Amino acid sequence: MSPPEKKQRTEEYILYYWPGIPGRGEYVRLAFEYAGIPYRENSKEVPGILAKTEKVGTPPHFAPPALRLPSGRVVSQTPAILNQIAPRCGLAGPLGSKLNTLTAEGKAALRELSDEELEKAEEERSVVNQLTLTVLDWCNETHDVHHPCAASLYYEDQKEAAAQAAEVFRKSRLPRWLEYFESVLASNPATAGTNGGRTYLYGKQTTTADLALFHVVDGTFFAFPKRLGQLKASGEYDNVFALYERVKGEKGIKEYIESGRRQKFSMGLFRHYEELDGEEKDE
Amino acid sequence: MSPPEKKQRTEEYILYYWPGIPGRGEYVRLAFEYAGIPYRENSKEVPGILAKTEKVGTPPHFAPPALRLPSGRVVSQTPAILNQIAPRCGLAGPLGSKLNTLTAEGKAALRELSDEELEKAEEERSVVNQLTLTVLDWCNETHDVHHPCAASLYYEDQKEAAAQAAEVFRKSRLPRWLEYFESVLASNPATAGTNGGRTYLYGKQTTTADLALFHVVDGTFFAFPKRLGQLKASGEYDNVFALYERVKGEKGIKEYIESGRRQKFSMGLFRHYEELDGEEKDE
Repeated sequence: MSPPEKKQRTEEYILYYWPGIPGRGEYVRLAFEYAGIPYRENSKEVPGILAKTEKVGTPPHFAPPALRLPSGRVVSQTPAILNQIAPRCGLAGPLGSKLNTLTAEGKAALRELSDEELEKAEEERSVVNQLTLTVLDWCNETHDVHHPCAASLYYEDQKEAAAQAAEVFRKSRLPRWLEYFESVLASNPATAGTNGGRTYLYGKQTTTADLALFHVVDGTFFAFPKRLGQLKASGEYDNVFALYERVKGEKGIKEYIESGRRQKFSMGLFRHYEELDGEEKDE
Repeated sequence: MSPPEKKQRTEEYILYYWPGIPGRGEYVRLAFEYAGIPYRENSKEVPGILAKTEKVGTPPHFAPPALRLPSGRVVSQTPAILNQIAPRCGLAGPLGSKLNTLTAEGKAALRELSDEELEKAEEERSVVNQLTLTVLDWCNETHDVHHPCAASLYYEDQKEAAAQAAEVFRKSRLPRWLEYFESVLASNPATAGTNGGRTYLYGKQTTTADLALFHVVDGTFFAFPKRLGQLKASGEYDNVFALYERVKGEKGIKEYIESGRRQKFSMGLFRHYEELDGEEKDE
């Protein structure tokens, strides 16, 4: 008698992240919410060097977020997680999303790709990875404005340095990030001639980079409402703000926001300190 | 008459990076030097939002390093470049290195992988990506110690904040980075029972993560010689320093160092300011 067919593993994802703030875990949540793929949260056994747990396997993880994949493997580092799940979520471009090794169907489809398709698939996934990394750099910089000296010190103990960092951030870095992403949006050949805004960073479908940019703009509206309001009013970055509105209304994301499950910004990566947001007058 | 066979493209890589410092370009150089794959340097047409050039295609790049691949596509963001070339350089693990879409042979071999091999290949490349990202976080943090408020300001204009950042870095962050990588090395099941140090972060062959860790330790010896000397002498991180010595002697890397082509640390990411390196006395 031959052994019974092995049952297909349940496709289960578990996100490990601190409770109470959206944080870097939010980039992962947005991907699953967009794709309509269920995931569970575990905020009690967060892996990291401070809370080692045998359950996450080797190598140990430096910090959350970490994601348990259906295979049981746990991956950490936000850009690595996003690069891993982007194809499964359809967020790595039309061909890049065929590089999905997380399901049996995905693996079979991958092997069917021609040389040319394989090259294009890798290109799509790689460009999405590159753009996502750049958005996350902006996120990190926004955090470092209120904690320039050390994440482990209180804001109150580095207020002077934060004020100095915030001035440069408001005057030159924030406009530069907006200018960069505006140039990416405006030069995307796939959306040339589009009416009503060029709102895709790459190709003409949503990627992890679009979702991340939506979240960073959202967090920056929370942290620097005055300054970002001024920059929006300048009309120089209309495509960036159009992307923000477009993503907000996407199926999956819209439902997520309306569900009340999306955690509010508070004292996490994005923080609002009025004194760091500058004067009413345009700078 | 049928057209003549298209000639195999020459496998040419061009690295765009600022001249005069190793910088983030060095992580890419080390990969090619290790693998013995030739690459050219271009320090005159460095892409980035400040020096846009049509030659690099879309999307535009935020900052160097950027790498022109044999296909003509240009990829930027250090971790994205390393993730892209790691399989080609044999630096993504034995199976992960079969995910090489940069050559025709690589693509053919990829399609031959079974479901199980494909899953394991993706795991290897993903873990190497995750570890490399974590090493690069340490690198970024080391830079931010001397430029905590803004990269665009002079060190002299943020010396007080730098002193505050350096104190936390010396006392808690630097030991924490070492502790983390020591724990990765010591818990690697592939090197259990190895005589003379467990010097592979993942599996039992060199990856981009090993090369990057070598470089960050090297840069930290330059920037914080006193403090890193104390921590080395503590004997608590012997595997990290054994990895450093092991990589230094690897074929390819050894030749690169001896060639004199490897640029010296100076006023780049890793900088030595004596006042940031603390007291002679162990902290």
